[in-house]
Amino acid sequence: MHITIPDIDAAAAAAAARRLDRLTKPQGSLGRLEELAIRLAGMTGNPSCRFDQRAVVVMAADHGVTEEAVSAYPSEVTAQMVANFAAGGAGINVLARRAGAQVVVVDMGVRAAPGVPGVLDRRLGPGTRNMTREPAMTLAQAEAAVATGRELAGQLAAAGVSLFLTGEMGIGNTTAASAVTAALTGRPAQEVTGRGTGLDDAALAHKVGVVERALALHRPDPADPIGVLASVGGFEIAGLAGLILGAAERRIPVILDGFITGAAALAACAMAPGAPGYLIASHRSVEPGHTAVLEALGLEPLLDLRLRLGEGTGAALALHLVDAALAVRDEMATFDEAGVSERTDG
Amino acid sequence: MHITIPDIDAAAAAAAARRLDRLTKPQGSLGRLEELAIRLAGMTGNPSCRFDQRAVVVMAADHGVTEEAVSAYPSEVTAQMVANFAAGGAGINVLARRAGAQVVVVDMGVRAAPGVPGVLDRRLGPGTRNMTREPAMTLAQAEAAVATGRELAGQLAAAGVSLFLTGEMGIGNTTAASAVTAALTGRPAQEVTGRGTGLDDAALAHKVGVVERALALHRPDPADPIGVLASVGGFEIAGLAGLILGAAERRIPVILDGFITGAAALAACAMAPGAPGYLIASHRSVEPGHTAVLEALGLEPLLDLRLRLGEGTGAALALHLVDAALAVRDEMATFDEAGVSERTDG
Repeated sequence: MHITIPDIDAAAAAAAARRLDRLTKPQGSLGRLEELAIRLAGMTGNPSCRFDQRAVVVMAADHGVTEEAVSAYPSEVTAQMVANFAAGGAGINVLARRAGAQVVVVDMGVRAAPGVPGVLDRRLGPGTRNMTREPAMTLAQAEAAVATGRELAGQLAAAGVSLFLTGEMGIGNTTAASAVTAALTGRPAQEVTGRGTGLDDAALAHKVGVVERALALHRPDPADPIGVLASVGGFEIAGLAGLILGAAERRIPVILDGFITGAAALAACAMAPGAPGYLIASHRSVEPGHTAVLEALGLEPLLDLRLRLGEGTGAALALHLVDAALAVRDEMATFDEAGVSERTDG
Repeated sequence: MHITIPDIDAAAAAAAARRLDRLTKPQGSLGRLEELAIRLAGMTGNPSCRFDQRAVVVMAADHGVTEEAVSAYPSEVTAQMVANFAAGGAGINVLARRAGAQVVVVDMGVRAAPGVPGVLDRRLGPGTRNMTREPAMTLAQAEAAVATGRELAGQLAAAGVSLFLTGEMGIGNTTAASAVTAALTGRPAQEVTGRGTGLDDAALAHKVGVVERALALHRPDPADPIGVLASVGGFEIAGLAGLILGAAERRIPVILDGFITGAAALAACAMAPGAPGYLIASHRSVEPGHTAVLEALGLEPLLDLRLRLGEGTGAALALHLVDAALAVRDEMATFDEAGVSERTDG
């Protein structure tokens, strides 16, 4: 698999920065909003970029590792929540509606296939296998999952989507994300494993042990991201890695959500080192592994709201800041237009 | 002046928390959004509170201390920006429009009275006096400014406004806010004085010296907030303190902006210790004094975006999070409605 990620367009970014510096505010005083407008210009190659159609791609799958009792919720919840997404009742539905984004729900391998209308069927199997006993999936499945995500990015782009948000659902997937993060960053399991949907101390210690066992069994090679995804990943994690690659190769910005989509981004960036330039980190999750992910990607999150829901909810909240940044860029008066004096010392 | 601030309604807050715990998400997994919905219920006494009409009150005034060369911008900019607010071209106009909030611009004492239609005239004078030489205003002016803000809160509430955002404009007002913050928190000037609209190191050192001279001249008493405002405050700072009191006494939540509105909140809370319960800190400003203000108020900001524009821009950005919190509360499906299984261990 060869993936070409275009360079960030420095001229477009500089043009956006010049525009921002003409607006009636001290230069740089809108801080990270200005950074966002500049980065988005560099990604798209367009200092006046707009994102009229945006999609939260929520990939769902089950995880064989739930046999090891790593979650506070039963694995049936994955399918139940997919049905909830399709019915519009989940957190991501509410926040995506507010943000003017469509929700694209993708079944990448939910155990009990819900067969719900409106859910895209991209199933690679009835959930992964138990990574403490065998690889979560075959290399062929990992490659297919990445290819599926890449293709979906192309299909959505062809339909006019110009901004992606990533989301996920999968009981057990913080365990997989911890293993992927440990494998790709070299950090110990203890540092990158958290409470997920709400484990107590004993259950957390057990979960750390599960991640350690899986890593000891497979010894995944960080130089082989497909191998990492196959041995300890998940169908939705691999699919999201592909979606990120498919977006970046088309100059489409991606707003990441939390820890699981961050682990997917880590894998994507291990396959294509230029990909981080197209990523926006929406928030810092409560999951400790997410901080390791953000550091490895060199991304600073926009929000820190102690979120740990996933689904793309943090990304949907951050979309508002993206829209605010573009509104500032386009709608504020310049010093000349408003007849406002500039600095006396510059 | 006697001000009665009602207690926070713990029963309403608990009812909102119960509702949130029935929604299809792990309990508490929407972090600070859930906290917001709970706090707003406690403030308003209504677990289903809504805020259909919201106003950013932008108070503007000039500062005599600009004679001491404390700002990178000439003081004419205050009046020019008031005109820009009235014309709809400033950052706060753009962000308030996006957030569905009206902008109420109040001239509390701009030197060159712009006489712009649409600006409320509540002038207390042509700017304050130079606080390094004499009190910024008389005690009567400070009391009148606070009373003006309190009355305006009542007038806007009578017109249906149920949520206030605070904003300000005034070249030189970070200097006044630093002096007010130092006086009310007991921190040294150096710790609470920053670069404002963009001073270099030498100009910052000069500004710290200006604040120190003013404090040494007046020795303001932290137990006398009106005295503090009179000696080293500003008309807009005192007016905003009054607005905050007028909101809190009516159970109306207030979204603070950054350092200057934070200094106003400090003064308000020194007059009425129950007021912080009605305050939401929108963001952490780049100004170092803001962190001292937030600590003194016991508030944790929602955003940290390296903003330093003021005007209410941070508050307008945070309004989105308030609206998102209420949408989650009202629009998400419950476990029962969606047929989703709950925790296996609880």
